[in-house]
Amino acid sequence: MTERVREILSWYASDNPGTRANLARLLNHGKLGGSGKLVILPVDQGFEHGPARSFAPNAAGYHPNYHFQLAIDAGCNAYAAPLGFIEAGVAQFLGDVPLILKLNNHDVLYDEKDPCSSVTGSVKEALRLGCAAVGFTIYPGSTRSREMYEQLRAIAEEAKSVGLAVVVWSYPRGTSLSKEGETAIDVVAYAAQIAAQLGAHVIKVKVPTSHIELAEAKKVYEKQRIPIGTIAERVRHVIQSSFDGRRIVIFSGGATKGDQDIFDEVRGIRDGGGFGSIMGRNSFQRKQPEALRFLDTVMRIYSGELQ
Amino acid sequence: MTERVREILSWYASDNPGTRANLARLLNHGKLGGSGKLVILPVDQGFEHGPARSFAPNAAGYHPNYHFQLAIDAGCNAYAAPLGFIEAGVAQFLGDVPLILKLNNHDVLYDEKDPCSSVTGSVKEALRLGCAAVGFTIYPGSTRSREMYEQLRAIAEEAKSVGLAVVVWSYPRGTSLSKEGETAIDVVAYAAQIAAQLGAHVIKVKVPTSHIELAEAKKVYEKQRIPIGTIAERVRHVIQSSFDGRRIVIFSGGATKGDQDIFDEVRGIRDGGGFGSIMGRNSFQRKQPEALRFLDTVMRIYSGELQ
Amino acid sequence: MTERVREILSWYASDNPGTRANLARLLNHGKLGGSGKLVILPVDQGFEHGPARSFAPNAAGYHPNYHFQLAIDAGCNAYAAPLGFIEAGVAQFLGDVPLILKLNNHDVLYDEKDPCSSVTGSVKEALRLGCAAVGFTIYPGSTRSREMYEQLRAIAEEAKSVGLAVVVWSYPRGTSLSKEGETAIDVVAYAAQIAAQLGAHVIKVKVPTSHIELAEAKKVYEKQRIPIGTIAERVRHVIQSSFDGRRIVIFSGGATKGDQDIFDEVRGIRDGGGFGSIMGRNSFQRKQPEALRFLDTVMRIYSGELQ
Amino acid sequence: MTERVREILSWYASDNPGTRANLARLLNHGKLGGSGKLVILPVDQGFEHGPARSFAPNAAGYHPNYHFQLAIDAGCNAYAAPLGFIEAGVAQFLGDVPLILKLNNHDVLYDEKDPCSSVTGSVKEALRLGCAAVGFTIYPGSTRSREMYEQLRAIAEEAKSVGLAVVVWSYPRGTSLSKEGETAIDVVAYAAQIAAQLGAHVIKVKVPTSHIELAEAKKVYEKQRIPIGTIAERVRHVIQSSFDGRRIVIFSGGATKGDQDIFDEVRGIRDGGGFGSIMGRNSFQRKQPEALRFLDTVMRIYSGELQ
Amino acid sequence: MTERVREILSWYASDNPGTRANLARLLNHGKLGGSGKLVILPVDQGFEHGPARSFAPNAAGYHPNYHFQLAIDAGCNAYAAPLGFIEAGVAQFLGDVPLILKLNNHDVLYDEKDPCSSVTGSVKEALRLGCAAVGFTIYPGSTRSREMYEQLRAIAEEAKSVGLAVVVWSYPRGTSLSKEGETAIDVVAYAAQIAAQLGAHVIKVKVPTSHIELAEAKKVYEKQRIPIGTIAERVRHVIQSSFDGRRIVIFSGGATKGDQDIFDEVRGIRDGGGFGSIMGRNSFQRKQPEALRFLDTVMRIYSGELQ
Repeated sequence: MTERVREILSWYASDNPGTRANLARLLNHGKLGGSGKLVILPVDQGFEHGPARSFAPNAAGYHPNYHFQLAIDAGCNAYAAPLGFIEAGVAQFLGDVPLILKLNNHDVLYDEKDPCSSVTGSVKEALRLGCAAVGFTIYPGSTRSREMYEQLRAIAEEAKSVGLAVVVWSYPRGTSLSKEGETAIDVVAYAAQIAAQLGAHVIKVKVPTSHIELAEAKKVYEKQRIPIGTIAERVRHVIQSSFDGRRIVIFSGGATKGDQDIFDEVRGIRDGGGFGSIMGRNSFQRKQPEALRFLDTVMRIYSGELQ
Repeated sequence: MTERVREILSWYASDNPGTRANLARLLNHGKLGGSGKLVILPVDQGFEHGPARSFAPNAAGYHPNYHFQLAIDAGCNAYAAPLGFIEAGVAQFLGDVPLILKLNNHDVLYDEKDPCSSVTGSVKEALRLGCAAVGFTIYPGSTRSREMYEQLRAIAEEAKSVGLAVVVWSYPRGTSLSKEGETAIDVVAYAAQIAAQLGAHVIKVKVPTSHIELAEAKKVYEKQRIPIGTIAERVRHVIQSSFDGRRIVIFSGGATKGDQDIFDEVRGIRDGGGFGSIMGRNSFQRKQPEALRFLDTVMRIYSGELQ
Repeated sequence: MTERVREILSWYASDNPGTRANLARLLNHGKLGGSGKLVILPVDQGFEHGPARSFAPNAAGYHPNYHFQLAIDAGCNAYAAPLGFIEAGVAQFLGDVPLILKLNNHDVLYDEKDPCSSVTGSVKEALRLGCAAVGFTIYPGSTRSREMYEQLRAIAEEAKSVGLAVVVWSYPRGTSLSKEGETAIDVVAYAAQIAAQLGAHVIKVKVPTSHIELAEAKKVYEKQRIPIGTIAERVRHVIQSSFDGRRIVIFSGGATKGDQDIFDEVRGIRDGGGFGSIMGRNSFQRKQPEALRFLDTVMRIYSGELQ
Repeated sequence: MTERVREILSWYASDNPGTRANLARLLNHGKLGGSGKLVILPVDQGFEHGPARSFAPNAAGYHPNYHFQLAIDAGCNAYAAPLGFIEAGVAQFLGDVPLILKLNNHDVLYDEKDPCSSVTGSVKEALRLGCAAVGFTIYPGSTRSREMYEQLRAIAEEAKSVGLAVVVWSYPRGTSLSKEGETAIDVVAYAAQIAAQLGAHVIKVKVPTSHIELAEAKKVYEKQRIPIGTIAERVRHVIQSSFDGRRIVIFSGGATKGDQDIFDEVRGIRDGGGFGSIMGRNSFQRKQPEALRFLDTVMRIYSGELQ
Repeated sequence: MTERVREILSWYASDNPGTRANLARLLNHGKLGGSGKLVILPVDQGFEHGPARSFAPNAAGYHPNYHFQLAIDAGCNAYAAPLGFIEAGVAQFLGDVPLILKLNNHDVLYDEKDPCSSVTGSVKEALRLGCAAVGFTIYPGSTRSREMYEQLRAIAEEAKSVGLAVVVWSYPRGTSLSKEGETAIDVVAYAAQIAAQLGAHVIKVKVPTSHIELAEAKKVYEKQRIPIGTIAERVRHVIQSSFDGRRIVIFSGGATKGDQDIFDEVRGIRDGGGFGSIMGRNSFQRKQPEALRFLDTVMRIYSGELQ
């Protein structure tokens, strides 16, 4: 075990050996293994956006095995998906890549302004399927945020008691936030703090913009002159807001965009002290060879091999 | 066991032997046994539409034993019904036909725009009555879809743990969909994907039309030129949307219509790679000899005996 | 055991011996014992309508023992009441008459348009008090019907597992039905079907009128020329709608009316193949000698002694 | 044991010996012990109305021990209070007076038109604290009555199974009742009936007025000429409505008023066959010596020593 | 153990030795140990107000260990925080300071008028993390107060059964109260009473103003001439309203303000018989040396060393 991984695990000293071993599995697997950085492949878009929008651009992705193989071949730290996708492929890839069972999901056939994902899996299922961690989405700002926080509380407690790690997608949404506010720096930092206080081991947020949403927060950002001008500064603030860097925080790639934009974003995440990326559509919607090249570049930026 | 059944079962390698044995029972029973195709007799219309609308056209159908006998005589792969019908007949037909206990039902004495079926049975009851599988309806698009998904999650987990198979009726409905949208190709494919991600072993959807409901989806269908002109093409797309063909997807017959229309539809399902049909009103609302002839034709189309 | 009782019990072959023994107790007790006909005394009006409206016309009825004694003296098959009335009298009449614990009740101090009864007893209490069956009311057509169906599902499953019989009061009500529709023939037949599909052993409905409420149903009744002109015809249709006569269906007496009207109704029930009556207010709101004479006449009509 | 207590206990013959022993404790304790009459001290006003309104008039009442001592010194049959008050004093008065743990409470910081008390204690806590009974309030007439009835059902079942007695405060309230209707004779009698049917051992209602609230009930009261002119007549009707006198029914004192009015009311309760009073504010808001004199007078009226 | 601590513990004689031992830990720890006074450091603002508003003024506070160390160095009686903060630091400070796990929390990304905090921890987690007590917030006056009371009931029962102490934050809020009313003397005293009746061992309220919110209460305050002119008088009334001083009541510091104002407030709390303060933002938003001086002054006022 590297010094860096040992250091990161020391932040989770209140967890049992089972959970820490699973965090170690995530940190030690793949090309970035041991570096303290992570690139995770998530594929829940089939549920979230529908199959054609998700997989038609690269039709190989309709097949559940494709994503296991992509995560393995690319050297990702882990593969995250809902129950069905994990069930359908896991038996052919036993032990080949750490798995994160996504325990709640949302679809757009009914798309409400104040969303609350449906619980679609369980800790018991994660154990049955040999997963290292469970994943759960919360939508801070939603009128139904309380329901999700309380579900997460119960799931996290159960997961920790059976030695699993807990990965929380913390995505601000809801009628009390403007569209711009969903990625505002104050809101994203707040969302990271909430996930950390709820007991997440790994926190996933969106890359924040320099917009500030909340009036009370704005006063503080201005008075304290918190630097939020660059991606790296904003990432640094989010990391600081997650227990001063003592929780693993990774960033989502979002919708597909130009590669250079993504690589610049990754550099910002790296330079701001972020722990890595979770790259869904940007990975699996490309043909596999291109996806492998793309992910390799991302990983080399994180490893420092590429500036 | 045929090669085809062995192949199909290989897709369910994460399930326990009990569940896979029950899937094998469904696949190996009846005239289509071993072919990988299924024709299932469902009789929940007494609950869903009322007794006279369901059974008056062929009054023999008021009797619970009639449907067991019909399913047996026609060589169906399975018979699916709510608790009462199964309870009333099962003791006289022990082991004669695989049974699917339909665990939720809806009536039209109170018919809401955003429906949610009532849970009317349980996994424990399915075991007590010797069933091979449980059936559950979800209405993606309903404002209450979340409740049904979460019920299904719990039921599927329990069913799998005790060796039962899980059959999901996935019928888009609700105020966020147009009437035409309920059978739109993008919506039906999405509904199949959701059922698959929720862990269904067998998925039942309606035969889709070429209508596209969702604007975001429409862009993708057009850009990717997904072929949806014929029934076979649309069925193929639904099958692809169900884990690239690695989940059993069957199609409902819907309201009674002309026989040739049905047979053409069945040919389309077959040619598109569909796994079969679930034929309710079109079967039991005919006099028995006619129903047997009708189902025999359907099965011969699936077996390839008839083009 | 008579042939007729043996035949009736054969319809419940999926139930355990305990439940079938309790059905036998109901069928074999009292003056009609062995005939396959039942007259049951229900006294839940104290809860449903208040004490004065229920008992002032025959003040002896305020006393809980009165109704036990009346059921015994009249030779009823069973006595049905809520928890309090059963608790208050049972210890003095141990084994004298089969008891049905009514597990949900409704009052008119708060009387909503879409009612849902309160659960006021449990299967465990029914066992503690030595009852043969539990009773449960559902209101098909109510916006809250789903809640009642799901409660019944759980109660019926538990009752059957401990050897009790399940009696369902199926009374259509709610904003989606007209007042006249509550006793319409299509609606009453539908309500009986729902209770049967939910797993009821004994179904209680109101005597239907020849009104047809639902447009879709009306088409079928007319096309199939279902005879609904006389009470006997309508009862026959309800019986047919209850698994072609393979479920015990009894009819409620409703509000007090002229004796000849009631006797004619009873003849209609008998001639239509109905299994009997549940006679509340018409029994206990009379002075006891008169009530005994009245019930004796009803029973003699059912036994065929009186035409 | 006196004949009268033996008689009263005979009405509860379906209860286990533990519960009957606790009823005997209530009936045999204090100055009225053995007479079949009860005067109970309830102190939940701190929660219901706030501390200053409750205790400032006699500041000794802020102290939890005060009420234990008052109940003991006055020779009350029992002392009833919420969790906090019982917990705070019980260890100093072990076995000195039977205790009733009030399991639900309501405050006026949020005072809704259709109230539902909060559950603030449990049967398990009542056992831990050595109580003889649990107390529970229902508000018949409230749109939320169903919720309270169902909570009471579960609590009463649990309490009876562990040998505790169940005391029900039945106070009609809610938007479907007029203010005057809350104490109308028909409504109070109905509320007593509901509590009895729900399985209460002891029922507490308000002293009713001669107002009749419900149109359907009014017809019956007039037709049957039910006497409701005097307090004694109305109390008699309430007692009759509570299983013809086979349930213990006691009456609340309500807000403080002139002593003679209260004594007259007590005479009416006694003469109508009522079982006693529950005297809160009229007791503990006086200085202790005056309270003792006051309660002594009340008890002497009940014992018949005073006319 | 000091006489004063022994006296305070005597008020909790109905609790088991485990809970009393944990109360003793709180009372005996730190600079005020043994005096019967407490100063507790609470840090839930990261969740309640967001990370920048909470920690930017003293950026050391982003780090979870900072607050443990501050509480230890300042000699606080206990440190209270949500799950995440406790988990992140506890393993490095085993046994160094009594811990209170805050079991519910609220954020302002969605800030409703009638708030209800989310349950974010459990009694089981408090045991796992070695805490001495659990903390829980109720908002009397909120339309959702009932939900919080019932959650507290269950949590308190469980906590007491496993030997933990229960600390209740009782903060009136909601549409039925004016903004001024949230700290009105009658409302704060009522909130303290409710917490005490719900079984709290330690109650935390805000320092009340002399405003009186409720009309019914106003009459009593005026008629009984309850002195509420000074902080000490108001604190005395709150203490009296908490079982005449037999429950530990501490006061929150609120938003940062001038130090002399705070010290004067602390003097008022002390002189009115209050048991201490819970000092969050006023402590951790200062640089550590200043915070230590500040807390030392507060403690010396409580100990009487400073007038």
